[in-house]
Amino acid sequence: MQNKKLKLGIFGFGCVGQGLYHVLKETHGIQAEIKKICVKDREKSRILNSDIFTFDKYEILNDPEIDVIVELINDAPTAFEIVKTALQNGKHVVTANKKMLAENLVEIYNLQQQYNRSVLYEGSVCGSIPILRNLEEYYDNDLIASIEGIFNGSTNYILTKVFEEKKSYLEALKGAQDLGFAESDPSLDVKGFDPKYKLVIAMAHTFGVFTQPEEVINMGIDKINPIDIKYAKENNYKIKLVARAFKAEGKIFGFVIPQYIPADSMLAGVRNEYNAVLVEGAFAEKQVFIGKGAGSYPTGSAVLSDISALAYNYRYAYKKSEQGDSLPFSNDAAVDVVVSFPTGNLISSKDFETFKGGYQGNGHQYLTGSVKLEKLKAWSSWDEVSVILAPELNLVALEKSKKELLSA
Amino acid sequence: MQNKKLKLGIFGFGCVGQGLYHVLKETHGIQAEIKKICVKDREKSRILNSDIFTFDKYEILNDPEIDVIVELINDAPTAFEIVKTALQNGKHVVTANKKMLAENLVEIYNLQQQYNRSVLYEGSVCGSIPILRNLEEYYDNDLIASIEGIFNGSTNYILTKVFEEKKSYLEALKGAQDLGFAESDPSLDVKGFDPKYKLVIAMAHTFGVFTQPEEVINMGIDKINPIDIKYAKENNYKIKLVARAFKAEGKIFGFVIPQYIPADSMLAGVRNEYNAVLVEGAFAEKQVFIGKGAGSYPTGSAVLSDISALAYNYRYAYKKSEQGDSLPFSNDAAVDVVVSFPTGNLISSKDFETFKGGYQGNGHQYLTGSVKLEKLKAWSSWDEVSVILAPELNLVALEKSKKELLSA
Repeated sequence: MQNKKLKLGIFGFGCVGQGLYHVLKETHGIQAEIKKICVKDREKSRILNSDIFTFDKYEILNDPEIDVIVELINDAPTAFEIVKTALQNGKHVVTANKKMLAENLVEIYNLQQQYNRSVLYEGSVCGSIPILRNLEEYYDNDLIASIEGIFNGSTNYILTKVFEEKKSYLEALKGAQDLGFAESDPSLDVKGFDPKYKLVIAMAHTFGVFTQPEEVINMGIDKINPIDIKYAKENNYKIKLVARAFKAEGKIFGFVIPQYIPADSMLAGVRNEYNAVLVEGAFAEKQVFIGKGAGSYPTGSAVLSDISALAYNYRYAYKKSEQGDSLPFSNDAAVDVVVSFPTGNLISSKDFETFKGGYQGNGHQYLTGSVKLEKLKAWSSWDEVSVILAPELNLVALEKSKKELLSA
Repeated sequence: MQNKKLKLGIFGFGCVGQGLYHVLKETHGIQAEIKKICVKDREKSRILNSDIFTFDKYEILNDPEIDVIVELINDAPTAFEIVKTALQNGKHVVTANKKMLAENLVEIYNLQQQYNRSVLYEGSVCGSIPILRNLEEYYDNDLIASIEGIFNGSTNYILTKVFEEKKSYLEALKGAQDLGFAESDPSLDVKGFDPKYKLVIAMAHTFGVFTQPEEVINMGIDKINPIDIKYAKENNYKIKLVARAFKAEGKIFGFVIPQYIPADSMLAGVRNEYNAVLVEGAFAEKQVFIGKGAGSYPTGSAVLSDISALAYNYRYAYKKSEQGDSLPFSNDAAVDVVVSFPTGNLISSKDFETFKGGYQGNGHQYLTGSVKLEKLKAWSSWDEVSVILAPELNLVALEKSKKELLSA
């Protein structure tokens, strides 16, 4: 497609779509123009002339002039249908829909091979941070031991306000929504689904592992209570919602669980809607990427960089999965946690691999020690149970694995 | 060169060369083998069998089987001769020699076009951090306002030890050299030449500006005295050696000068031999990259990623310079500084654009206010003068420029 002006058909004109429109208008390095935008709501007043809008998806999908579909709607099943039809019709796709991607990644991978077209989705993982491109291109030959970080801007904004401005959880949530970087359904953010989808996508590009989202634990920040926050402050910790995947004992582990983070550590300093990704490799060692994880312009800018990459026929190589030595995903490991629940017998010391101790207060019971991930997975659907990872995870398996990499 | 095993000829087998050897041996994702290594010292005992070594550069440069020259020696003029001959002989080049690159970047750019071969040098700027590749590929369409950060691992290690462990400057310097991440000539690091070379290279890929190193101010950490450190601690600052370039009023400014940094800011948390690069774009907004800036494996890993990129014919596009709208480099701006010198008339309030105040102590005079960069450039060669940037740079021009970008 080199030297040709790309013609774009866009689905959705919300926060990211409008960001893309502005970014595209204000930059001159890329040869691309928007031909049509498909929207749902016929009544809404819009910033552009009505000529450019359509309510019929086939007006874009069947237009032979359109080279690239930019899919920016909320509804994951509808989005997936659009992506499939676009590829069948010979169009490349750029999307930021993490739920749709995480749920259909294997099929999206296969469809790209089948129709010899590209699907790029840098904007889907941590907004402006170019993490997928770096995992694909730069860490190709680096044996990666782990990837972790703050993958959700709105919960990080909420936690920052709760810790720094003594706002209540609900006040802080409202603030995040008003600023436009909480999803339309806040439970996707606060229950940890959104960062889990991103983690599933990142795991494919980090370790070559395709996992279904339902296999991966997501615990959110909605059950964090004032005592947890008091405990954190007394011990000079922050609480951050951390997404993490690592290689150990020939398996890949991954989960999204809030964690106590020492106040002087790198992740603690990542505030408000900023995201951070920490990649640990055997040779490059620790690499950190920090940037805005949400918002109209930052995500629009990531989407535009994908469009720009299509101009030179870029495709994800998925090298780590194609090298054929990808490892199985597993929840068969234990991590150190603080578990809290209403006083009673819901959980006991017998549920722990190693039980460290417990205390009671404010009608709640607190137990600490190490618990198997499978057990945490079951608890994640129990409304009464809150889990926060210990500041030192004590991932013996991970440490061993890193040593193995270096002495291999 | 796809699907072909690359044959490498390496110049130099010091810290980075040996790191590359190990990284290459322990990874299996890349098809490349070392055919010959050219070294200087005939007496040194080495970890590899003597068959692989040569003392004659033409045994590599004239070998038609060798596809890629990896240049890892210290001597910049000799390195440049090697690079030129390699390109003339149809070979691609990977190098981490920042001094050679910074001094000859225009010619290296031209030689690549002339001989249709690639010169890659990710390892030359901030070790393991993939900053050049990101500037080339990802920030293509983002209007970048500034790039700044900690570009030198050994001075950052020294400053960290001086601040955290109350070591003297000389003790800390020795520690950095013992650990192998201070250059063989420490003045390159401590006087700020090394980060300046990196800044010159980065400016070409950020703004499309080719500048000679002698145009750019470098002030080091060797004149920082105990009173400066005491002042920093009393005010909850760290001192970091910051490299910085930014766009303002239609020009590009750039310099390497130590700076007081608030202890709770992102750069303050970048410790020991870690480097950080902060890119500020109009759309992606603030992006931070942190990683090890020196050391055998981290730099070896960056060099390997360049070799790997050659396997798919990667070349820097130098898009920002080829777009033809690159701006001139300039020192015609003022910055806020604290200047110290032995009590006397060396410098007076008249040297300042805006004079804020002064004090005396310990046989030294301290003056604060804003000074033109041209004047700082003259002072940078005066042994008695120490300059530290104020924590708030008050770069009005920069702020204005960012607004211009957004409303363009």
